[in-house]
Amino acid sequence: MTELSNMSLTQMDQASLFHPVTSIHDIEVNGPQIYTSAQGVEVTRDTGQTLLDMGAGLWCVNVGYGRPELVQAGAEAMQKLSFQHFFGGASAEPTIRLADRLLGLFRDTVPGSDMARVFFGNSGSDANDTAMKLVIYYNNLRGKPAKKKIIARQGAYHGLTLASGSLTGIEGYHTAFDLPIKGVLHTSCPHHFAFAQPGESEAAFTDRLIVELEEMIAREGADTIAAFIAEPVMGTGGVLLPPEGYFARVQQVLDRHDILLIADEVITGFGRTGQWFGCGTYGLRPDIVSLAKGLTSAYFPMSASIISNRMWEVFAGASEERGAIMHGFTYSGHPVGAAVALANLDVIEREGMVENAARLAPVLLESLREATQGNPHVGDVRGVGLMAGVEFAGFRAGGTPHKIVAKHAMQHGVLTRGLPYRPVTSFSPPLCVTEAEIVEAGKRYARALAAAMPELDALR
Amino acid sequence: MTELSNMSLTQMDQASLFHPVTSIHDIEVNGPQIYTSAQGVEVTRDTGQTLLDMGAGLWCVNVGYGRPELVQAGAEAMQKLSFQHFFGGASAEPTIRLADRLLGLFRDTVPGSDMARVFFGNSGSDANDTAMKLVIYYNNLRGKPAKKKIIARQGAYHGLTLASGSLTGIEGYHTAFDLPIKGVLHTSCPHHFAFAQPGESEAAFTDRLIVELEEMIAREGADTIAAFIAEPVMGTGGVLLPPEGYFARVQQVLDRHDILLIADEVITGFGRTGQWFGCGTYGLRPDIVSLAKGLTSAYFPMSASIISNRMWEVFAGASEERGAIMHGFTYSGHPVGAAVALANLDVIEREGMVENAARLAPVLLESLREATQGNPHVGDVRGVGLMAGVEFAGFRAGGTPHKIVAKHAMQHGVLTRGLPYRPVTSFSPPLCVTEAEIVEAGKRYARALAAAMPELDALR
Repeated sequence: MTELSNMSLTQMDQASLFHPVTSIHDIEVNGPQIYTSAQGVEVTRDTGQTLLDMGAGLWCVNVGYGRPELVQAGAEAMQKLSFQHFFGGASAEPTIRLADRLLGLFRDTVPGSDMARVFFGNSGSDANDTAMKLVIYYNNLRGKPAKKKIIARQGAYHGLTLASGSLTGIEGYHTAFDLPIKGVLHTSCPHHFAFAQPGESEAAFTDRLIVELEEMIAREGADTIAAFIAEPVMGTGGVLLPPEGYFARVQQVLDRHDILLIADEVITGFGRTGQWFGCGTYGLRPDIVSLAKGLTSAYFPMSASIISNRMWEVFAGASEERGAIMHGFTYSGHPVGAAVALANLDVIEREGMVENAARLAPVLLESLREATQGNPHVGDVRGVGLMAGVEFAGFRAGGTPHKIVAKHAMQHGVLTRGLPYRPVTSFSPPLCVTEAEIVEAGKRYARALAAAMPELDALR
Repeated sequence: MTELSNMSLTQMDQASLFHPVTSIHDIEVNGPQIYTSAQGVEVTRDTGQTLLDMGAGLWCVNVGYGRPELVQAGAEAMQKLSFQHFFGGASAEPTIRLADRLLGLFRDTVPGSDMARVFFGNSGSDANDTAMKLVIYYNNLRGKPAKKKIIARQGAYHGLTLASGSLTGIEGYHTAFDLPIKGVLHTSCPHHFAFAQPGESEAAFTDRLIVELEEMIAREGADTIAAFIAEPVMGTGGVLLPPEGYFARVQQVLDRHDILLIADEVITGFGRTGQWFGCGTYGLRPDIVSLAKGLTSAYFPMSASIISNRMWEVFAGASEERGAIMHGFTYSGHPVGAAVALANLDVIEREGMVENAARLAPVLLESLREATQGNPHVGDVRGVGLMAGVEFAGFRAGGTPHKIVAKHAMQHGVLTRGLPYRPVTSFSPPLCVTEAEIVEAGKRYARALAAAMPELDALR
């Protein structure tokens, strides 16, 4: 592509595109960054620069870019049946097989889980929006019309529809959008590094969070609380790992008060934590599981909501009297998406990518520790499986050292994200990443960090 | 496919899939209807039956099924760049070109429109959800924090996220989901056939609707009303055409009270009404246009929201101070979806499908009038472009003659939908449909109607 046509694309972007989560001013001044192709872990810009994508897009390209198996499965399915809806009992084979396979995968890898059916949508946002609607529906059917509030957590990311954006617990996504809507509560963020009191152990921190949760439920009335929603590991919040004993204790509280658990596995699902699902890694037994991203490795927009038997039995029991459950989307269960998802699961299984994530987890952490060793601005390096975060510390509130570092990282050929809640750069490479690629990314990140030092020093 | 494996797929569906907008009881008793392939206007079931799909899926397969141009464009784009997000100024060529092309198409075909930028999402539901968020954001930026309510219409269909489902004005989608949420109002359905008073002309009916709208705005206070949302032709509500003078009069009211107009063109966009956009057909000058379905002919889930200059200027003016607009979805602007959409637009243009829709509109109406002529249960046959409805009349409230007829139509080899608001079977074939296919569909519908007569007579 010539420089002239790139100029023209840049201008066309500036004159026509409304980018998501982007500053208009920044686009006007600096223009977009245009990506032209991608293969494996590597993405290429129109400038010719290639970068190691340590973000896997937005935590989503689990099998890596450009896998011909997914392309071929998608093209064959599209040629055969380019669309099918699933309203009124209509159906198609790829989607049926995908639902069956997801139930089996979850059952086999999350001990104690008891799931019944799979609902499909298009995005993590609509999966969590669907979860909210199903929770309301469930308690109306059970004759508990007052039991509707949902407890989410500060720092949570659950999407950006008006309702799922209300579950999200990051102020930047709420400001000027009048969020959250009524009926959504946020309990404290379980991030020990930032929010523990001086000298407080993880176990003591968990104790305190549980007391606070109990107090919130008592204050609101347990008969008004329908569900608790949690990411097994909080992603966008800053790669925040649950403190010791956290989920076991939370679930005891929920069980005692007849409160459903929604597990948002949009980021953690499909191998990210080194197991198939974060629910397995951290012992969650959810009533609804929201899946997207890794389900298709983002080759095709698709989400899935796995529903527990205890919810399904209520839905099925009321069905003859009530008729159809009036919820769904045109593209719910899209057969091309299902075919892509099946091929994606084949690749993950055949190439042992979940095992690869578990095997390379210590390499990723070690590589980031080495890159940040002795740096006075780095407070914490943490992770599980192939999701890791470097948290900066010692800056005034509102300072964005992590965004400065992410910008330098891009110039040094590695994509990492500066996150919106904690001052963290995140790392979530495709699960096909090799040890050599992680080590190389670590070296580039170290050079970026060195280049950023004058700005970081000045910001302090 | 053998009968045995079909049996097994049926059982697998029953044991694993949570169908959208479907009765669980019905699936348990009757099983799903499994579709295996589709080409042009024709879809094939696992039973070997082929049917003329007079619904184009759910009003969405505008270019028809199985077009190799779309498959090839999708596969090539997926192999090259299987995913790209658009956060933080990231971009990719197909999406830039699609945004530019949509702006041009809208400008060239909707006189008086003044649109600035295109935001992308995944579904009509999230496009209307996005519209709600942007309306709130806009009035917060303008220092009008009380001006937030949205007026929709009874019988409207705007999607099924928690928020867009609140805009939807059909009770069946609200019951047991606690919808609508606060801040959404519904004014009367502008359906002359059903809701005009005896002897009331279309113009007088419009007068009355306008008075009612004015009264609602006065009662609530114009300084609390942010937007009015409307489908140019109400689709799911029953193919309800605006009465004489309706939109011109509505827009005068909106202009007088500084109220934005959101045009939901999810169904009407891309040729359905015999022009490119329903806004052109009916003279709407919207501030936000929601598009999906025909944008990709449903080969790939994608939506688009076109934003007016007056909104964009407020967003851009506040940008340097406020930073990023914190709204978006992982798959916003998916480059594979954009490539499919561009190929889809190429096909529509090259084969003159918008013109075909206009040319065959009278054939479709004539064919339905012939099929229903003299039938005592049919009250109205109406349509515009390639969307038409047959409304049944004379039944008690809650009777579903249209669903009985739709079931018989399926057995007679034609897909038509029994809609959820008015007792209407709808017809919205792919825009590639031929005159012969429409005539054949009409004949099959006539036979289905004849076969349904005993049930219809008994229902009355």
